[in-house]
Amino acid sequence: VRLTFFLNHQHLRFNPLRGSWILVSAHRMKRPWQGQIERPPEENVPRHEPTNPLCPGSRRANGEVNPKYESTFMFDNDYPALQPDAPDPGPGDHPLFQAKAAKGVCKVMCFHPWSDITLPLMQLSEIKTVIDRWAELIEELGPKYPWVQIFENKGAMMGCSNPHPHCQVWASSFLPNEPDLADGHQRAHWKTHGEVMLVEYARQEAVRKERVVVENEHWLVVVPYWASWPFQTMLLPRRHVLRLSDLTAQEREALASIMKMLLTKYDNLFEVSFPYSMGWHGAPTGPYLQEDMSHWQLHAHYYPPLLRSASVRKFMVGYEMLALEQRDLTPEQAAERLRNLPEVHYKDKAK
Amino acid sequence: VRLTFFLNHQHLRFNPLRGSWILVSAHRMKRPWQGQIERPPEENVPRHEPTNPLCPGSRRANGEVNPKYESTFMFDNDYPALQPDAPDPGPGDHPLFQAKAAKGVCKVMCFHPWSDITLPLMQLSEIKTVIDRWAELIEELGPKYPWVQIFENKGAMMGCSNPHPHCQVWASSFLPNEPDLADGHQRAHWKTHGEVMLVEYARQEAVRKERVVVENEHWLVVVPYWASWPFQTMLLPRRHVLRLSDLTAQEREALASIMKMLLTKYDNLFEVSFPYSMGWHGAPTGPYLQEDMSHWQLHAHYYPPLLRSASVRKFMVGYEMLALEQRDLTPEQAAERLRNLPEVHYKDKAK
Ligand SMILES: O=P(O)(O)O[C@H]1O[C@H](CO)[C@@H](O)[C@H](O)[C@H]1O
Ligand SMILES: O=P(O)(O)O[C@H]1O[C@H](CO)[C@@H](O)[C@H](O)[C@H]1O
Repeated sequence: VRLTFFLNHQHLRFNPLRGSWILVSAHRMKRPWQGQIERPPEENVPRHEPTNPLCPGSRRANGEVNPKYESTFMFDNDYPALQPDAPDPGPGDHPLFQAKAAKGVCKVMCFHPWSDITLPLMQLSEIKTVIDRWAELIEELGPKYPWVQIFENKGAMMGCSNPHPHCQVWASSFLPNEPDLADGHQRAHWKTHGEVMLVEYARQEAVRKERVVVENEHWLVVVPYWASWPFQTMLLPRRHVLRLSDLTAQEREALASIMKMLLTKYDNLFEVSFPYSMGWHGAPTGPYLQEDMSHWQLHAHYYPPLLRSASVRKFMVGYEMLALEQRDLTPEQAAERLRNLPEVHYKDKAK
Repeated sequence: VRLTFFLNHQHLRFNPLRGSWILVSAHRMKRPWQGQIERPPEENVPRHEPTNPLCPGSRRANGEVNPKYESTFMFDNDYPALQPDAPDPGPGDHPLFQAKAAKGVCKVMCFHPWSDITLPLMQLSEIKTVIDRWAELIEELGPKYPWVQIFENKGAMMGCSNPHPHCQVWASSFLPNEPDLADGHQRAHWKTHGEVMLVEYARQEAVRKERVVVENEHWLVVVPYWASWPFQTMLLPRRHVLRLSDLTAQEREALASIMKMLLTKYDNLFEVSFPYSMGWHGAPTGPYLQEDMSHWQLHAHYYPPLLRSASVRKFMVGYEMLALEQRDLTPEQAAERLRNLPEVHYKDKAK
């Protein structure tokens, strides 16, 4: 009953991680689209391109030559937004003109030696290696920095400037806005309800089923009740886990498997290499390693922009920037579409 | 000294309207761009296109025929995200699954009968008419709705699906996230400092000068100290004004003039019809009309996406969506570039 109501009537939903609302107006999908059409992603990426700075054996902007790597490969970003040695601007002279020091480090990690492959087309053992490297990054940078943001921008539409499969990590001396909000709201939920917000949320979703996209013994992928991007998902462990580095070998294998399933479904939705930004949120590190952070639950966010087809995206513009985010299909509709898609990649099927 | 520091060292700045931080890393402009190139906007828009539903005399999706209007023209959005009669979903069954009623109305307003004109190319008296219509919208919808969001999405890059010059108004039964944040922070500033945050801010900027783009007797345009988009600006009255409808005739004329100047500079920056989303934030209405809202100051936000040229934009993706917004030039650099641009439109000069 409630789902039919939601389909037919615009309403607001609450995002308990951010403390903000989103507007769901599913009837809006009926409007014809006459706006911008996106170019399809380049389908003929060469496997190896000696001038591509991410390829094995290539020379990068700083003159260094990449090893002929055969698995993952990590290096310091040649144009880092965060550098380790930035000095403190000192106190401002007015409460409306506040600045603060920012230090950090930015790295790039190639997933694979080939440029013409993506995570869903990689083997499970190769994805597992990526996950192990992510966990190592938290262990390596965590003691020094309160926040280690691992993220992947995939596709030109998401500002990705190189087709070679890779992610980035930006570690910072400060807790950025989004994890700060997530920390505050998870902490408050823990205090008020005596339970871990996202552990309880995953438990509820596993029972309710209507927003589940795919699940296995250790993990669950849902279109969150409060999703703002059309096919946004959240990837959650079933067990209470604070950080990537806390995952057991079994959980990492199960994670490789569920990532492959989710990303295959994403690609199958419009039969295109699905663009998105994704990233991991786990309990803060640095000084927080000494604190009880039990209110946190590790999770990944996937934010894909496509709405209607491989070439029609959702624009988060005017009303969204100035008032609040609005979506054109219900989270339950999005989950159902993703859930019903095959778990074999359209490119593998074609073979 | 501080400005040179800011140019050379990444740092955080505080946005007192949102209570959030942004990362300024000006050294990042040095990196080469190999990512997505935007298509330039269509330069050959016909003045009148009978099949365009926004043109005078056209038939719209609902079958209605537009009048042969000669000035502005307003009509109800044929695909509204907010409808006046949506029922209440009722209380949810769990704190993590909260929904709320949303009612409202969505209108479209054409600025001019021609499709091949934009605000900076319109005459001052024509822009003044647009401003008068905006003020009337606040008077008409304000008593019924707590929030009346007037906004313009300009350019295909900003999700605008029709080149005919127009804006939208979405009035809602609720205070959306962004104005809710602005309300809370202005209210707290008023309580703590006994002054109106944005009146004091404009006063400070008028003295400091380094972020001022253009000013006149009644108005000031600055690249805010905490701007996140590369050439983001804020338009502020010098007098303490709560809402658009409170502006005097003189202030409206001065507003038409400063809007024409700002938008001319924007177009001149890359010699292209500059894409942006813009919108007005004034004191909330509806039940708030009965309250003392003196902590509010009317202002407009302009959020333009372009960064390096007419075809290279800033992507607010991965790190920005998951952590915090990052900018590649200082607000002072952006203001200086805009300030030094001619006040004659490149298209008028060419004549
Ligand atoms: O209403 P329009 O112009 O068709 O649509 C545009 O503006 C809306 C309000 O900002 C957005 O929700 C849409 O995603 C965008 O494409
Ligand atoms: O670092 P890249 O991939 O060159 O750049 C991309 O990701 C960054 C982090 O999300 C963004 O700040 C840039 O706007 C985007 O183009």
